[in-house]
Amino acid sequence: MIEGHGDDAYRYSQIISDFSSNICAHSTHEALMAHLAERPALLDHYPEPEAWSLERRIAERLGVDPRNVIVTSGATEAIYLIAESVCKRLPKAIVLEPTFSEYTDACNKAGLIVLQALFNSRIRLGIQACKPGFVENASLWLCNPNNPTGAVMSRKQIGELLKAYKLVVIDQSYEKYTSVSLMTAKTAVRLGNVVQIHSMTKDYGVPGLRLGYIVTSLRLARQIRSRLRPWSVSSLAIEAGKYLLEHDELECRPDLSEAQRLRQNLTAIDGVQVMPSQTNFMLCKLAVGTAAALKDYLARKHGILIRDASNFRGLTSRHFRIAAQTPAENDALVSAIKEFVNSFQMK
Amino acid sequence: MIEGHGDDAYRYSQIISDFSSNICAHSTHEALMAHLAERPALLDHYPEPEAWSLERRIAERLGVDPRNVIVTSGATEAIYLIAESVCKRLPKAIVLEPTFSEYTDACNKAGLIVLQALFNSRIRLGIQACKPGFVENASLWLCNPNNPTGAVMSRKQIGELLKAYKLVVIDQSYEKYTSVSLMTAKTAVRLGNVVQIHSMTKDYGVPGLRLGYIVTSLRLARQIRSRLRPWSVSSLAIEAGKYLLEHDELECRPDLSEAQRLRQNLTAIDGVQVMPSQTNFMLCKLAVGTAAALKDYLARKHGILIRDASNFRGLTSRHFRIAAQTPAENDALVSAIKEFVNSFQMK
Repeated sequence: MIEGHGDDAYRYSQIISDFSSNICAHSTHEALMAHLAERPALLDHYPEPEAWSLERRIAERLGVDPRNVIVTSGATEAIYLIAESVCKRLPKAIVLEPTFSEYTDACNKAGLIVLQALFNSRIRLGIQACKPGFVENASLWLCNPNNPTGAVMSRKQIGELLKAYKLVVIDQSYEKYTSVSLMTAKTAVRLGNVVQIHSMTKDYGVPGLRLGYIVTSLRLARQIRSRLRPWSVSSLAIEAGKYLLEHDELECRPDLSEAQRLRQNLTAIDGVQVMPSQTNFMLCKLAVGTAAALKDYLARKHGILIRDASNFRGLTSRHFRIAAQTPAENDALVSAIKEFVNSFQMK
Repeated sequence: MIEGHGDDAYRYSQIISDFSSNICAHSTHEALMAHLAERPALLDHYPEPEAWSLERRIAERLGVDPRNVIVTSGATEAIYLIAESVCKRLPKAIVLEPTFSEYTDACNKAGLIVLQALFNSRIRLGIQACKPGFVENASLWLCNPNNPTGAVMSRKQIGELLKAYKLVVIDQSYEKYTSVSLMTAKTAVRLGNVVQIHSMTKDYGVPGLRLGYIVTSLRLARQIRSRLRPWSVSSLAIEAGKYLLEHDELECRPDLSEAQRLRQNLTAIDGVQVMPSQTNFMLCKLAVGTAAALKDYLARKHGILIRDASNFRGLTSRHFRIAAQTPAENDALVSAIKEFVNSFQMK
């Protein structure tokens, strides 16, 4: 288990601005917590062995059959279940890097041979896949919008990949974090070779809750269900999920134009390169110093937390990721990074 | 995943008395829920990837090193982790039946050959184990106190089994539900071939929360940790665990003498056999009718929920399990069961 994920504010004292987690946390959760507190009996009984009642509500909203929906303890449980069940039937897994490390970890733990492919060669990979023997009997894992880059693949690009692979796992955890139109749940169900991962954690900015779900065809859903552990989703999470589905105003809607403003200001710093992004978060690369040193500098001197992205496969010690916050916080970040970069130029 | 576990009150309307779950639910959880509600920021951040802070508190209380403690999302996650890691190194698993079905399910899913042995031949099995070839390279799984029987193995009996097996998994989830002295965490750590499972769910009567932990040697803990999925325990569960550890008054302490009174009254019914129990719950067998029919009769006519135990491996359609409730509820149960049994004698 990797210890270098983002959102590690618990390691530092006096963090004022947290840019390390992609999750937009614009709303407070007092009403949700009060709703749970009014129901202390939730703790007295086992949850449903599988969160059927929540699956029905999600399915209704998506316009699919409840059997096509599997609620999990966060998207992470979904990733492990998929690797252990449907992907295990294919001996190889191809993961488009750099991306969320858990796809590779889960596939490795499931005993699969994992091939890492670079993100920017995605489409070429899809075509190569058609060559017999190269990626036959491989599942393809991709994150869309992608973490840590913030890049979004179009429906057309996804469509090309779907032709080449027997199984494509698409993690749409960040679907509310972009204005690009993505594959719908109905389409995922219909296609038959797609497993979609969704994250209520990210939809509503509640990472402490652990709540996600899978959408896929009946055939694949049956295989995934066979690996489900009973009661993996707590009664509190099930009830919270129902509450959130009824409160659209709590959905995360990051300010994408502010994110673009931040991106431009960062790009303007001599010594910082920022990858293109269609979300609220973005991947940056330092020309001087290391991401670890920058992270430490920002945390200790400015109370700012960023994500050292050097432990993403395919990235370097100079990469870091940030998620846009308020305009004032973003401006403070830009100044602080400038200060760090300038300290090298003075040497 | 078995759907016939107890505590399925959600399937019926108008259940007044619930005897189906072993978990004593004497205390209300309003204070705990209020404590969580005062901390809505728990939802804003990812929990620790592994619940280290809670592991430290548990270890301190048990007098062991925090590395010997692994917090899990309920004892169920512990069972699956153990099957997937330490038990998988031994090709066979022996499960003492009748018992909680998840040991066999988890071992099967981990690809082990599972042998079911009958509970009442436990000690003989330990001796047979010494015969080369019979149970070599097998792990032994037992639940102590045992579910669904309520029987408790003495330290001496366990000691004999420990000599015969390379690895013994002891689920002590019901440790607060008996007055018999059980193996301590310190001993489990020292022995080196024991993995102990504990359940905060059962310690404090909070099955809706999902919180358990493993105690074992450093060597085995390292192997089990390698299978942990990150963030499997929510921030709410971690905080609740810390709160509960500081509130001993919330610990479950079933009224064992009332349970014995209920047992005697049930035994007195002609047509009901009750197995010996040293806990608050007990296994019963009907001489007439089926447990399914009795369950349905009690639920619909009396608003009483019992556990049809026919799906426990090694039991029959006549077995049911009950956990003692208040004296008045227990008396109502005895009358209602008498009524059911008598209806057969009148035919």
